[in-house]
Amino acid sequence: MKNDHLYEKTIETKSIYKGKIIDLNLVDVELPNGEKSKREIVNHPGAVAIIALTPDEKLLLLRQFRKPLERTIIEIPAGKLEKGEDPLDAAVRELEEETGYKTNELKHITSFYTSPGFADELIHLYYTDQLLPGQTNMDDDEFLDVLEVTLDEALEFVEKEEVYDAKTVFAIQYLQLKKCLKG
Amino acid sequence: MKNDHLYEKTIETKSIYKGKIIDLNLVDVELPNGEKSKREIVNHPGAVAIIALTPDEKLLLLRQFRKPLERTIIEIPAGKLEKGEDPLDAAVRELEEETGYKTNELKHITSFYTSPGFADELIHLYYTDQLLPGQTNMDDDEFLDVLEVTLDEALEFVEKEEVYDAKTVFAIQYLQLKKCLKG
Repeated sequence: MKNDHLYEKTIETKSIYKGKIIDLNLVDVELPNGEKSKREIVNHPGAVAIIALTPDEKLLLLRQFRKPLERTIIEIPAGKLEKGEDPLDAAVRELEEETGYKTNELKHITSFYTSPGFADELIHLYYTDQLLPGQTNMDDDEFLDVLEVTLDEALEFVEKEEVYDAKTVFAIQYLQLKKCLKG
Repeated sequence: MKNDHLYEKTIETKSIYKGKIIDLNLVDVELPNGEKSKREIVNHPGAVAIIALTPDEKLLLLRQFRKPLERTIIEIPAGKLEKGEDPLDAAVRELEEETGYKTNELKHITSFYTSPGFADELIHLYYTDQLLPGQTNMDDDEFLDVLEVTLDEALEFVEKEEVYDAKTVFAIQYLQLKKCLKG
């Protein structure tokens, strides 16, 4: 096996919690040097997020209360994958549910794990500037404000730590790079 | 209170697990519409990550086995904050421990929450191109390969999903943007 010298073998997996969104497992591992250690692992269904520009080139953002942070932050539209759901379908669904905009054209930009040290959450990131009117349909426990902002306004939100999460900071930098490359 | 219409009030917090790195709490909340819901919340001490360029402008990367993903991925140097530790000190410490390079000049680039839906992990990201020889000093349960790569090689790792996590994908895009803005 490639990278054998880094491999951590599972000795035993103990389930600590099985939840609505996440599970927590405690895994006893054998390290490459033969010693034992424990890994705390959060399992998550994965998520999608969408960089969406309106016809007048405004970025769609959502203000949401995030209980783990005990505050509101401003993020690009995003949502968890449902069981067995294709990420592209999930992105189309979440965009319309949360913002009221539909699209038939989503381009996959990149995917990344958010916290590979303790969680397996993988986010798939899409881009569109082809939006059509649709119909919002929030989850029962979801409350949010929809914003449409210029790139400069988005950068101000980053500066003021109102935009303050990985996917959204990445998304805004993506738009900066796109603009710079265009000339 | 600002954004009252989004606020979720804590009714009760139940500790599910207190671990070495993360804790898990289950929080009963009252939603803005008066309904009840539950939030699964992972508490994490926070982390630092470093975009470090060698004198010949190579990016320092680490290949590490990540048990939650059951594979190795390639990341920028990073590590958890120790209790009460200043993020800048942690960044200097982690860089030397993991790569054997010291620095006296770290510039704060940005900070972001990795998974605001279920976790409070905040990563502080630093940049340096001023590296001095130092001494590696890995944690007992830490095994990794140090790589020094060009920006093009780093972009290939992203393409091949060997670089596959939020902070590192952000870091490489940061270097792309820096290069574009420069010339």
